[in-house]
Amino acid sequence: MNKIEVCLSPELIHLHDLHGKIVVVVDIFRATSTMVTGLANKVTSITPVAGLEACRTMKSKGYIIAGERNGQTAEGFELGNSPLSYLNNGFEGKKIAVTTTNGTLTIEKSKATADEVLIGAFLNLQATATYLAQQNKDVVIHCAGWKGMFNLEDSLYAGALVSVLDGQFEYDCDGAIAMKALFEQHKDDLKGFLSQASHAKRLQNHNIEADIDFCLTMDEFNFIGKLQGEELVKVAL
Amino acid sequence: MNKIEVCLSPELIHLHDLHGKIVVVVDIFRATSTMVTGLANKVTSITPVAGLEACRTMKSKGYIIAGERNGQTAEGFELGNSPLSYLNNGFEGKKIAVTTTNGTLTIEKSKATADEVLIGAFLNLQATATYLAQQNKDVVIHCAGWKGMFNLEDSLYAGALVSVLDGQFEYDCDGAIAMKALFEQHKDDLKGFLSQASHAKRLQNHNIEADIDFCLTMDEFNFIGKLQGEELVKVAL
Repeated sequence: MNKIEVCLSPELIHLHDLHGKIVVVVDIFRATSTMVTGLANKVTSITPVAGLEACRTMKSKGYIIAGERNGQTAEGFELGNSPLSYLNNGFEGKKIAVTTTNGTLTIEKSKATADEVLIGAFLNLQATATYLAQQNKDVVIHCAGWKGMFNLEDSLYAGALVSVLDGQFEYDCDGAIAMKALFEQHKDDLKGFLSQASHAKRLQNHNIEADIDFCLTMDEFNFIGKLQGEELVKVAL
Repeated sequence: MNKIEVCLSPELIHLHDLHGKIVVVVDIFRATSTMVTGLANKVTSITPVAGLEACRTMKSKGYIIAGERNGQTAEGFELGNSPLSYLNNGFEGKKIAVTTTNGTLTIEKSKATADEVLIGAFLNLQATATYLAQQNKDVVIHCAGWKGMFNLEDSLYAGALVSVLDGQFEYDCDGAIAMKALFEQHKDDLKGFLSQASHAKRLQNHNIEADIDFCLTMDEFNFIGKLQGEELVKVAL
């Protein structure tokens, strides 16, 4: 049976051997939820870029540039980090370049050695689980956290994915055990539980309650988001 | 109101500012549980030493040397890392020098900048909480983990301490929220919940079930263990 591990912060990823494994990067509020929503709404591709400046230069190459730092749209960027911006196929056929505080760095740290990199969100939880169960590879769920710190929403997603895959993977990883238990305890009121969390409070301060609700919607989409070369693309099941 | 934070691994401690704060170092299986038990059983002091060689040289200075690596007594050491070794005042009046895989490194990383360093264990949970509530300082609970990784038993202790101190400290730290919820959910069967955990399994393989039971005993002792200079000593409440 293949193994599943949880890494609770990109500052701990060096403790995991990613060779030959599928890494699922998760930044629920909001990078990976937004990326999945963009792909669902027919953007051609999304290129994650770790740095603000590097991302800005992508504009001259024909990309729509999306940039967020500390929860807000970065200066000079056309888009911030809201999944709602992409609804109604608003950027159909466009190539997006995106940089965020935590999510894009986490993708960067994963792609160096992982066999495959997916982006995870509650929005396509079951689809991602179905894909993982069909491959014959070990899995690492890589939580973006907040500036290196553990965060609740990404960890709960990790617990959700371990929970959905229970019986199909084995795990000898305390992060997986803890987060599965925490998710199963709070899955019927994720929003209420998360309302205590530091990042949800930060987001509420920015008046993006609607983003939070959307990012906590389960199984809205039935495809996976996968890194191919430098680009995230939609892959149908 | 003072603040309480949880740091889930010594690999994340650089993200916390320890200046002016009390750090509670916890390595439930078994370093800090063993240290508390030694102090309860009248050892004079316990000097944590990060390295095996540095600890070995303490023998010639009159210390009893205790050394553990990967759960087993290190070669050439008089004691390993079992709390049961210290029962019945077996080392009364002795000075102990100790090195372990995770706990002593975590103490080392804490003492550089923290205002005070305590060692935490379920064995003196309430006493430690009582002491913390009487000081007017912020608190960081520093989990030793396992070789840098998150582990379940130390994180559950962190949750227990946050739970006991609820209402007396404020917390805006996702680690504190998550571990408090997890502890409160599983506090009536910590051993059952922990039996899934990777480190408990490792310990069971070493036939130290009795150590596990002892380390999960609540409030056996009513004092705190505190670092004074280079030595851990018993401080009565």
